[in-house]
Amino acid sequence: MIITLTTDFRTADGYAGEMKGVILSLCPEARVVDVTHDVPRGDVESGARILQRIWDRYPPGTVHLAVVDPGVGGERRGLAAALGGRWFVGPDNGLLTLAGRSRPVETVLDLGPPPGVDAGAAPTFHGRDVFAPAAARLARGDDPAGLGAPVAAESLVVLPLPGPERVGESVHGRVTHADRFGNLATDIPAAWLGARIVVEIGGARIDGLLRTYAEAAPGELLALVGSDRHLEIAVRDGSAAERLSVGRDAPVVVRVAGPATAPS
Amino acid sequence: MIITLTTDFRTADGYAGEMKGVILSLCPEARVVDVTHDVPRGDVESGARILQRIWDRYPPGTVHLAVVDPGVGGERRGLAAALGGRWFVGPDNGLLTLAGRSRPVETVLDLGPPPGVDAGAAPTFHGRDVFAPAAARLARGDDPAGLGAPVAAESLVVLPLPGPERVGESVHGRVTHADRFGNLATDIPAAWLGARIVVEIGGARIDGLLRTYAEAAPGELLALVGSDRHLEIAVRDGSAAERLSVGRDAPVVVRVAGPATAPS
Amino acid sequence: MIITLTTDFRTADGYAGEMKGVILSLCPEARVVDVTHDVPRGDVESGARILQRIWDRYPPGTVHLAVVDPGVGGERRGLAAALGGRWFVGPDNGLLTLAGRSRPVETVLDLGPPPGVDAGAAPTFHGRDVFAPAAARLARGDDPAGLGAPVAAESLVVLPLPGPERVGESVHGRVTHADRFGNLATDIPAAWLGARIVVEIGGARIDGLLRTYAEAAPGELLALVGSDRHLEIAVRDGSAAERLSVGRDAPVVVRVAGPATAPS
Repeated sequence: MIITLTTDFRTADGYAGEMKGVILSLCPEARVVDVTHDVPRGDVESGARILQRIWDRYPPGTVHLAVVDPGVGGERRGLAAALGGRWFVGPDNGLLTLAGRSRPVETVLDLGPPPGVDAGAAPTFHGRDVFAPAAARLARGDDPAGLGAPVAAESLVVLPLPGPERVGESVHGRVTHADRFGNLATDIPAAWLGARIVVEIGGARIDGLLRTYAEAAPGELLALVGSDRHLEIAVRDGSAAERLSVGRDAPVVVRVAGPATAPS
Repeated sequence: MIITLTTDFRTADGYAGEMKGVILSLCPEARVVDVTHDVPRGDVESGARILQRIWDRYPPGTVHLAVVDPGVGGERRGLAAALGGRWFVGPDNGLLTLAGRSRPVETVLDLGPPPGVDAGAAPTFHGRDVFAPAAARLARGDDPAGLGAPVAAESLVVLPLPGPERVGESVHGRVTHADRFGNLATDIPAAWLGARIVVEIGGARIDGLLRTYAEAAPGELLALVGSDRHLEIAVRDGSAAERLSVGRDAPVVVRVAGPATAPS
Repeated sequence: MIITLTTDFRTADGYAGEMKGVILSLCPEARVVDVTHDVPRGDVESGARILQRIWDRYPPGTVHLAVVDPGVGGERRGLAAALGGRWFVGPDNGLLTLAGRSRPVETVLDLGPPPGVDAGAAPTFHGRDVFAPAAARLARGDDPAGLGAPVAAESLVVLPLPGPERVGESVHGRVTHADRFGNLATDIPAAWLGARIVVEIGGARIDGLLRTYAEAAPGELLALVGSDRHLEIAVRDGSAAERLSVGRDAPVVVRVAGPATAPS
């Protein structure tokens, strides 16, 4: 059974290594897969975005263990939640916000406030002492009912992420992520993009969509539909994030291209 | 059988990838687990600390392959050592210093000085040519006696790490590690901490222990018991290492809080 | 069956995580091994060099999936190629240049220009939508003929990398890589090195070869045969790349040491 790991621990402190050991001690047949340990520190939105990208690429039965947990040891709950045939285990702080938009969250189990789970759990490292054991138990087929009490899916913490909006014939959205190539992902779905559009971002104006980077000239700023089926802004063989000096939450506007807005 | 990897190779040069291939060629059923390849260059103490954290989280029978090896090709020995039911394979340069404090080192096998092991071994990459093969052979169940001659556990190289000391009613220790969150681990065991203490570090003074980060105000400097059961200094949602401008080996003093030292 | 991954994706965007999910969905028994996700952006030569180092360390039957793909979505082909009993899957942009020097490339299958492969494939992420599925199908034993049409091995794109040259009694080569230790790999094979040589690089002159780093004094610049059996320049416990301020493509000259060139 597959257990994926998504954390902001990096690897050099050994924390991710400890979690893997806990998993393999409880579920020796688990197949532990690193998604990333390089989520920016405490950046729950980034963690949520990664889960959104990866969750249904893995087969049903996969357990996604996600620990970006700035509130560890505090009041936030620990959860195991089922969604589309996969399990998610981690803190209840919004990590499921984006994956949870694509499919209803089914069972949700409250792993309990720290003291309730395990008297020996370190109050600073639930990844190792609460979440890794829960993930391992799910992976090895333990009855989920033994992990915690069911709670209402509606009680899950959801990040207050603004969505794109239609304003007249335009769409107003935002940059959701700048990737390692400097490509800018946005929250504007491909389905909202017409055949003739103009994109405005960071003071620049891009006429029309290309299909892929290779259709642009080297160094050219372009708009296209990214591999997550949303509008993406890129610079061929360069970095749109650097070119435009923009990052997450920068506004993006898509207008209908007409005679008046054609290049003069 | 599980083989964990702890190195200072990073991944971009392909060295860790070569080691994994060597392991999987000799022991196709091995389950290779990355602990980290981001140990600071040549930093044996950091490697030792990671092994200390992770070693007994893995099930008995695990082989921990650790290569932080600035003396490769020189006089230092290569070893396979058994400790608490797990094997450790790597250079004899102190990497086992900390794990070896928690449990007696049992069998120690001298993998031989480079020329003795394998005439074809590259004198600059024993990770690939000496240690990975030895780990794979242990994992697949080869007779350990075939790997090298037994030597006395007392002959293992041990890092001269100072321990904490009691000075009157105070404890004097040091920072052992600054983690990716800027949390400062120390060598002062939780069992040495009284109910009413004051911690002095980097010119700052912290009254009392909290249980977890979440009990502090955002940005507050705090002391607590870390997940390794030693005194830890942190800044909630911040970096104690940056706040105090201290790192490994910085002195830490724990005093008994009394009327005279109470906040005025 | 083993599938190795070599990319320039890093891990923090989730792209590598998506690829692993695609692989494990199509071939649940695949053993996915990270070689690296830290190839410098778009640096096909670095990717080729890593494949050269690692490919035959893995057992026959291994599928090496390599995605350093600045031309994704453009005219470049996607390929699966067999070489020495292993498969390579990735873009046809020169990634096989170096591994292909050691053994003839056997079967080459054209995975097709993007539209031909799969109408749903994202034109910006063939790693996930074209190469990962092809690798998974090879790993699970699908008939390779179903993956694409065979093409001539001679049609593979080859990087125009200059080789070392003999000029009189000297050898002129270049630095091929600076590794994480600042060691400088070169393209001059060990077999071309005589017993008494002088190496010139970055304005420095090194007399003779040592066998390993440990034979030099700390901080000393030295020449030796690296673990890839080529001339390597290093600084013991330091960085030759920094000391000499040189990197890839810096010229290296090996001369025969004689009375006239002995240290004066």
